[in-house]
Amino acid sequence: MILLDEDRLFPTEGRGRELARALFDSVRDLPIISPHGHTDPRWLAGNERFGNPADLFVTPDHYVFRMLYSQGIRLEDLGIETLAGEKSATDPREVWRLFAAHYHVFRGTPSRLWIDHSLQEVFGVEKGLSAETADEIYEQISDCLGRPEFLPRALFDRFNIEVIATTESPLDTLDHHARVAASDWGGRMISTYRPDAVMDPENPDFLNNLKVFSEITGEDALSWDGYLKAHRKRRLRFKAYGATATDHGHPTARTENLSQQAARELFNAVLRDPTDAGNAEMFRAQMLTEMARMSLDDGLVMQIHAGSRRNHSSAIHRRFGADKGFDIPGRTDFVTALGPLLDVVGHEPDMTVILFTLDESSYGRELAPLAGVYPALKLGPAWWFFDSADGMRRFREMTTETAGFYNTVGFNDDTRAFCSIPARHDVARRVDCAFLASLVTSGRLGETDAFEVVQDLTYHLAKKAYRL
Amino acid sequence: MILLDEDRLFPTEGRGRELARALFDSVRDLPIISPHGHTDPRWLAGNERFGNPADLFVTPDHYVFRMLYSQGIRLEDLGIETLAGEKSATDPREVWRLFAAHYHVFRGTPSRLWIDHSLQEVFGVEKGLSAETADEIYEQISDCLGRPEFLPRALFDRFNIEVIATTESPLDTLDHHARVAASDWGGRMISTYRPDAVMDPENPDFLNNLKVFSEITGEDALSWDGYLKAHRKRRLRFKAYGATATDHGHPTARTENLSQQAARELFNAVLRDPTDAGNAEMFRAQMLTEMARMSLDDGLVMQIHAGSRRNHSSAIHRRFGADKGFDIPGRTDFVTALGPLLDVVGHEPDMTVILFTLDESSYGRELAPLAGVYPALKLGPAWWFFDSADGMRRFREMTTETAGFYNTVGFNDDTRAFCSIPARHDVARRVDCAFLASLVTSGRLGETDAFEVVQDLTYHLAKKAYRL
Amino acid sequence: MILLDEDRLFPTEGRGRELARALFDSVRDLPIISPHGHTDPRWLAGNERFGNPADLFVTPDHYVFRMLYSQGIRLEDLGIETLAGEKSATDPREVWRLFAAHYHVFRGTPSRLWIDHSLQEVFGVEKGLSAETADEIYEQISDCLGRPEFLPRALFDRFNIEVIATTESPLDTLDHHARVAASDWGGRMISTYRPDAVMDPENPDFLNNLKVFSEITGEDALSWDGYLKAHRKRRLRFKAYGATATDHGHPTARTENLSQQAARELFNAVLRDPTDAGNAEMFRAQMLTEMARMSLDDGLVMQIHAGSRRNHSSAIHRRFGADKGFDIPGRTDFVTALGPLLDVVGHEPDMTVILFTLDESSYGRELAPLAGVYPALKLGPAWWFFDSADGMRRFREMTTETAGFYNTVGFNDDTRAFCSIPARHDVARRVDCAFLASLVTSGRLGETDAFEVVQDLTYHLAKKAYRL
Repeated sequence: MILLDEDRLFPTEGRGRELARALFDSVRDLPIISPHGHTDPRWLAGNERFGNPADLFVTPDHYVFRMLYSQGIRLEDLGIETLAGEKSATDPREVWRLFAAHYHVFRGTPSRLWIDHSLQEVFGVEKGLSAETADEIYEQISDCLGRPEFLPRALFDRFNIEVIATTESPLDTLDHHARVAASDWGGRMISTYRPDAVMDPENPDFLNNLKVFSEITGEDALSWDGYLKAHRKRRLRFKAYGATATDHGHPTARTENLSQQAARELFNAVLRDPTDAGNAEMFRAQMLTEMARMSLDDGLVMQIHAGSRRNHSSAIHRRFGADKGFDIPGRTDFVTALGPLLDVVGHEPDMTVILFTLDESSYGRELAPLAGVYPALKLGPAWWFFDSADGMRRFREMTTETAGFYNTVGFNDDTRAFCSIPARHDVARRVDCAFLASLVTSGRLGETDAFEVVQDLTYHLAKKAYRL
Repeated sequence: MILLDEDRLFPTEGRGRELARALFDSVRDLPIISPHGHTDPRWLAGNERFGNPADLFVTPDHYVFRMLYSQGIRLEDLGIETLAGEKSATDPREVWRLFAAHYHVFRGTPSRLWIDHSLQEVFGVEKGLSAETADEIYEQISDCLGRPEFLPRALFDRFNIEVIATTESPLDTLDHHARVAASDWGGRMISTYRPDAVMDPENPDFLNNLKVFSEITGEDALSWDGYLKAHRKRRLRFKAYGATATDHGHPTARTENLSQQAARELFNAVLRDPTDAGNAEMFRAQMLTEMARMSLDDGLVMQIHAGSRRNHSSAIHRRFGADKGFDIPGRTDFVTALGPLLDVVGHEPDMTVILFTLDESSYGRELAPLAGVYPALKLGPAWWFFDSADGMRRFREMTTETAGFYNTVGFNDDTRAFCSIPARHDVARRVDCAFLASLVTSGRLGETDAFEVVQDLTYHLAKKAYRL
Repeated sequence: MILLDEDRLFPTEGRGRELARALFDSVRDLPIISPHGHTDPRWLAGNERFGNPADLFVTPDHYVFRMLYSQGIRLEDLGIETLAGEKSATDPREVWRLFAAHYHVFRGTPSRLWIDHSLQEVFGVEKGLSAETADEIYEQISDCLGRPEFLPRALFDRFNIEVIATTESPLDTLDHHARVAASDWGGRMISTYRPDAVMDPENPDFLNNLKVFSEITGEDALSWDGYLKAHRKRRLRFKAYGATATDHGHPTARTENLSQQAARELFNAVLRDPTDAGNAEMFRAQMLTEMARMSLDDGLVMQIHAGSRRNHSSAIHRRFGADKGFDIPGRTDFVTALGPLLDVVGHEPDMTVILFTLDESSYGRELAPLAGVYPALKLGPAWWFFDSADGMRRFREMTTETAGFYNTVGFNDDTRAFCSIPARHDVARRVDCAFLASLVTSGRLGETDAFEVVQDLTYHLAKKAYRL
């Protein structure tokens, strides 16, 4: 049995299918550009073997365990440790069996497509995962993981990754990146400056993080001027490890452009009471504009991921911590919110701000019209819950007519799951090919143009937008 | 002439059409599970003949008369009585002619599909309804209605209904359900506990309703403790008549989890001034959480229908009363609103809360992510204005990738029109078959899986979610 | 080479394509009804030759220059004059070359489809526009423009326009309309009453505009009663020049129904401080209801275009003025906002209010339910950013099932670009044919009905709704 349909995600009939195939053939072997993601830099730095199938597919993947949890399976039984270090299921084989027995609940989801892709293409599995096949497939993957061609750097080469970005806090030591830089490994792994930990007063560790920030930069990050200097210094350090971008995960897209005096006072107020929600929101807003100003100087591309209401269940947050599937989107305004930042950098030809949303109703109404006029704005690809075949299709259908293709930036896999990288790029390429084929067969795009556009969407736009 | 295309609602070409047909063949004869609706229990209790064609198709169906009203036809001329009992058109044949002469305005609407289905499949009509055919079709239906095989229980059998739920207020005597329980009829008709009349302070009869609630339960429903006891008692009475669920039609999805002391004070404030909009909203919010707590005890599944702004035209409301087509949806937030309730019952494996929305922008952004992680949450099918072919398709397209199929609960016909029940289930089954076929032909779902899923969507998920 | 695919925008396969073709053949030669647009009345009044290709395709078209600006091209280099009268590029040939060299950024946009249509169908161009072909095509268009068959009235006849509406402020002298009325030209060009300049206190010229309004009407427009009289008088003047409609471009759809005493006080408050945002919004809201009342008297159809946040970049607004591509939509509420106006005129059978939105999330949730019940309400076609193939398809998919076809009003080209008129109607007709074909092939509409509906959508609904 073959898990994957060769023509998956293409139009289902006639000339559309043929054209999508031809378009896909022209880009399927292009290198992967992965300018935004969350893989662990330790993997490529250390090149140590991955653990076991449960470690690889279940325990770290919030797409997977949230769905299982929604069906009444306890996180403990999936090998998720509590913050206190409790862990019910210690046998990864039991975790894998539980996962396999419930694999049908993933029908119709992107997780299913990614996992089937990894199983077949990375590990050569040719049987559908189920309670019956669980043990056999577990053995097959385990066996692979012990072989040199399944070490992280070997997979990096096999996946044809030209460049991969990881994401680090300013407080990160960047040791893994340093280790890669000092090694003779030829692969390109770069960092991304993600300063949420020192920009979000509502982070419970905020004040302590500022102290560490001071230590790591040698600046007084508890004064406004020192705080800004610390950012500037740290950004340069990240650049030294290849970073070409910053990333900002904020609950809203709100920006502010206060006077420096007002910003200083706000900073001091936030230091006195970081839990004041109004000041915290305004501080994050102001800092986006400060980051934009720094980008004008040091050239780092700015990414704004807005709209996730994190840790919706406080019970789960208290017991298991963040990123446990309880980050729920909410309505997101961009039009008013981005005004102050755009007044400062929106017309700068050398500035790039890439926007991501979890509120699809803003695609056509707000994001495409904004990106379709401000030179600094570009649209990031469909994000998170919408990193899926239908999600990507809707992204193109709702943004292309207003913003075109050339205000978008190609694909981000945005993944923590190393083995899903080729699967995710495969889905994105196929969906774009299907979309382009539908434009051609409905007379909206010339065939020659389509072959040029698909190269841009797959490769050139990401390299250009992220300055890679 | 045949009114219905045998392949209606299927993909229009090739393998997709064939597969949709095959899927549909596998479920077309499954019994109808109707766990949520508004048919009159008197029909099955009394098994008396239905009136005339206008009574059956026009006068009680707000989908039909609102559209005719929008085209300038007066409600009076459609046989709708005013609250004062005025009625211009007393001849149902005239109402029918008016309807028939304007039948073209329903082109492209689900009403048209339902009515054509009822005309052809229930009454054997083979001509399109129009001014020309109005009288002939009127006679044909009238003739049928006089025959025993068109009595309600005969139709119930012919429609292959396994179970049907009606919806009653706590103030309802449940006489019709008692009559069925005492009879030797083998059909299964159950009630649903819909306490809006005693939970919505803005209902003009609220205070009076509480008095009746006291009488009917023997509790003092004008004290907080007595009020809660009255609910608990009445819920058990509904369970005795087969109820497995409660239903809540609220303007928003707001929930609260006040202390019992604060809730008591709120209740007293509401008794003093039920028209205070802020208190009324908070009381409804608190009561959803109280209902959830009771569900934990008595096992009734909870349904929340949120987002309809009722009686948009106060002139029509004053003259004709509620449910006259002027209930208009509005934006609906679920993420913040449901937080308090989910803190209480969201992680309970034995709890089921089924959510319905009239704000499609919340499908992908809020509802699917919430149902895709909270064990207690399930998504109800596309509701009301979206109980239509395109509406159902969008529901699947916007929720499946995040919540999967197994956090949904099958179909509700939600109808007041008895003869439309098979038509509505027919549409739902066809749309699901088309969706599944499209997943298979685009390589996103195995064919064997699709045949299993379609059984679940048609039959098993509804039985399981509603505990039937 | 042919720029246009003969079957563009039709379903891509099988019977759907054939049927769409047949439907289109039945309406492709129907006259154009253009009841809402922004072409310059001077063109048809004076019948003077159009300038040069850049003047025709680039400089006046905000769809075109905003996209070029988003790609880093300065407005000055596109021949856009600053308010101060500065203009960098004086050679239209250079502007044209810049446009041609960037023509690829329009791939997938409606602008591309419109321009290709104009190039091929109006000017006989058979080569794709690019840096290489720029000069040749420039010559070809220039050559055409000098010939009598390319004068405005000749094009009007060739485009088969039955009637075209322009849009004027109450302060406009209507000279061009007077000139047409006095001429022996047989074409029908009518005005539309667009009173924003004297209804929006936040217009910086508001107070001065009221003075001009007084002069032009002979009423004291600085008193409430005189102001209303001035409107009534001026509306009649517009009617004398053929106007059948008013048009209102408001940031929101808010309406109010204050007592005349309260309205008078509001008017006086607004005169004292027109910059008070709250009062300004309430005044616009009140004036929509006043306009509705006047429509009851004089029969002008009312159009409400709500939801554009104008001049998002204050820098561009200060330097170049309005309509420079920086009008960005925002979320728009209709349900609560329209309540007061609908209480006054919503049930009037002789009233027509046509609604337009830039917030697609309101199509199914708010607009279709409202238009599907209020006799006075009709839905305008997909507007502005959504005046595109996918935008129109979504409009039909999201409104038809609830509002049907007969609560819609056909197509508006809404254009400033004379040569794009046939292109835009061509797109609208094709999209409607594709939609109808898809309804027929999926068994939701009879084929005979589809041929009747397509006549209505193309011709009759616009004539009826706009009383033409």
